[in-house]
Amino acid sequence: METKNTIGFIGIGVMGKSMASHLLKAGYQVLVYNRTKSSTDSLVENGAVWKDTVAEVAKEADVVITMVGYPKDVEEVYLGEKGILKNAKEGSYVIDMTTSEPSLAKRIYDEAKAKGIHSLDAPVSGGDVGAKNATLTIMVGGDKDAFEKMMPVLQVMGKNIILQGGAGAGQHTKMCNQIAIASNMIGVSEAMVYAKKAGLDPSKVLESIGAGAAGSWSLSNLAPRMIKGDFEPGFYVKHMVKDMNIALAEAEKMGLWTPGLELSKSLYDEIVRENKENKGTQVLFELLDK
Amino acid sequence: METKNTIGFIGIGVMGKSMASHLLKAGYQVLVYNRTKSSTDSLVENGAVWKDTVAEVAKEADVVITMVGYPKDVEEVYLGEKGILKNAKEGSYVIDMTTSEPSLAKRIYDEAKAKGIHSLDAPVSGGDVGAKNATLTIMVGGDKDAFEKMMPVLQVMGKNIILQGGAGAGQHTKMCNQIAIASNMIGVSEAMVYAKKAGLDPSKVLESIGAGAAGSWSLSNLAPRMIKGDFEPGFYVKHMVKDMNIALAEAEKMGLWTPGLELSKSLYDEIVRENKENKGTQVLFELLDK
Repeated sequence: METKNTIGFIGIGVMGKSMASHLLKAGYQVLVYNRTKSSTDSLVENGAVWKDTVAEVAKEADVVITMVGYPKDVEEVYLGEKGILKNAKEGSYVIDMTTSEPSLAKRIYDEAKAKGIHSLDAPVSGGDVGAKNATLTIMVGGDKDAFEKMMPVLQVMGKNIILQGGAGAGQHTKMCNQIAIASNMIGVSEAMVYAKKAGLDPSKVLESIGAGAAGSWSLSNLAPRMIKGDFEPGFYVKHMVKDMNIALAEAEKMGLWTPGLELSKSLYDEIVRENKENKGTQVLFELLDK
Repeated sequence: METKNTIGFIGIGVMGKSMASHLLKAGYQVLVYNRTKSSTDSLVENGAVWKDTVAEVAKEADVVITMVGYPKDVEEVYLGEKGILKNAKEGSYVIDMTTSEPSLAKRIYDEAKAKGIHSLDAPVSGGDVGAKNATLTIMVGGDKDAFEKMMPVLQVMGKNIILQGGAGAGQHTKMCNQIAIASNMIGVSEAMVYAKKAGLDPSKVLESIGAGAAGSWSLSNLAPRMIKGDFEPGFYVKHMVKDMNIALAEAEKMGLWTPGLELSKSLYDEIVRENKENKGTQVLFELLDK
């Protein structure tokens, strides 16, 4: 009988909870830590083991997965004095699934390697629904050996799992994803505002334009919410802004010209100034519908 | 036995040729006129009848379809001294399938109505492939009766055929289509430039991001051409610029704020200044890849 690895899971938000729950169901022993302990209650009821600190998780786990908020959280959790790399076992694996900075992913990889720890950056797309259904797309950066070793673990949480290159390549790929979305959200929002102001039936317009060259995931999934005035978060404005800040910083380092990304960032900054950072990204419609 | 209408087809370009050819195959008598006569040769070989002037087409046809270039062409062909409305039969139908101005569509409708002629605006999406395969999306504005009468004719050329509202609504819907595309092209281009500059394999990036929330028709169909450096026209830059000019003018009339459309227009204007107006819209990648 196969002995399954012990997996530490740090960061039990909406996404992390679903992902850790799949690992439990797959038969892994799962150690959990989260800033707000109560978020882990249902996992603990289902067999997960609560640990009081990040360090304790790192000391006992064969694989540590993190799904936290911002790059500063990633930095603290991995590189802090009481963080993962100071405490993890030699030969263990660490996988950061947070959307974070490519350069930080490289720093973590380098420090991990110096300690004999294998590091992967593995951000995801697919949102809460993808996490719940274990259909996340997982974009991975790191060493091929580590990627292959961790494939069975990643397959428990996602479907389209691709090694995109060395350390940081997973994060860079996620930035491509967010950059494509950033400008498309403007187009989708403007098209829907135009439809409304021109006196058309926006739902009927979607029937005409949804399946052709204007078609996109955002048009199919978010435009109907715009039309209904449903601005509840599928993907939070505040997270989109976080991701665009990372992408803009990386683009600047590479000397890229990204006028669409800059425009989108400025529009979402305005949305944040209107205190709508906890709305879904489709609230851009409301900003333009003036 | 049903007697099929005589259809006049004015404007035999790449699109018009395929569309008129489907009408011939469906058993309609087709009268053709084009500024460059030689473009109609293959249609005439297959049974179409050449007419020397727009007026002659209009005098003899029960239905006149136009697929010309710019709004000024539409205006001349319909409203000019030797144009369609001065010569068409009372009770006949006119269908402009050019992407043109909503306000012009309304003017044509009004003048047509005053003469007892039924007018529809019916721009399409789906490009040369959609025209060839008779799978065009057709967005229609005008009276319901006329729409229903013309449905059998439109069904010969397209599949997703929707009456969007009164005169001009077809054109407005097409503008929504182009507005959504305009900003998305920026996002797709920036994402692919970022992938390249970050040292990723852009094709592999597409495997990760193509099917998720960043997914779009442009990402699936045009990004691969960007990666290959294939900037041959699927959809011409010059036509995209024409459409964006119409959309911007309409948006201004309605007092809309369309920052994405404005940005896209300014980028494509730059491409025109680089004498690339006969390239495909995916050449935006080349502008940003600097």
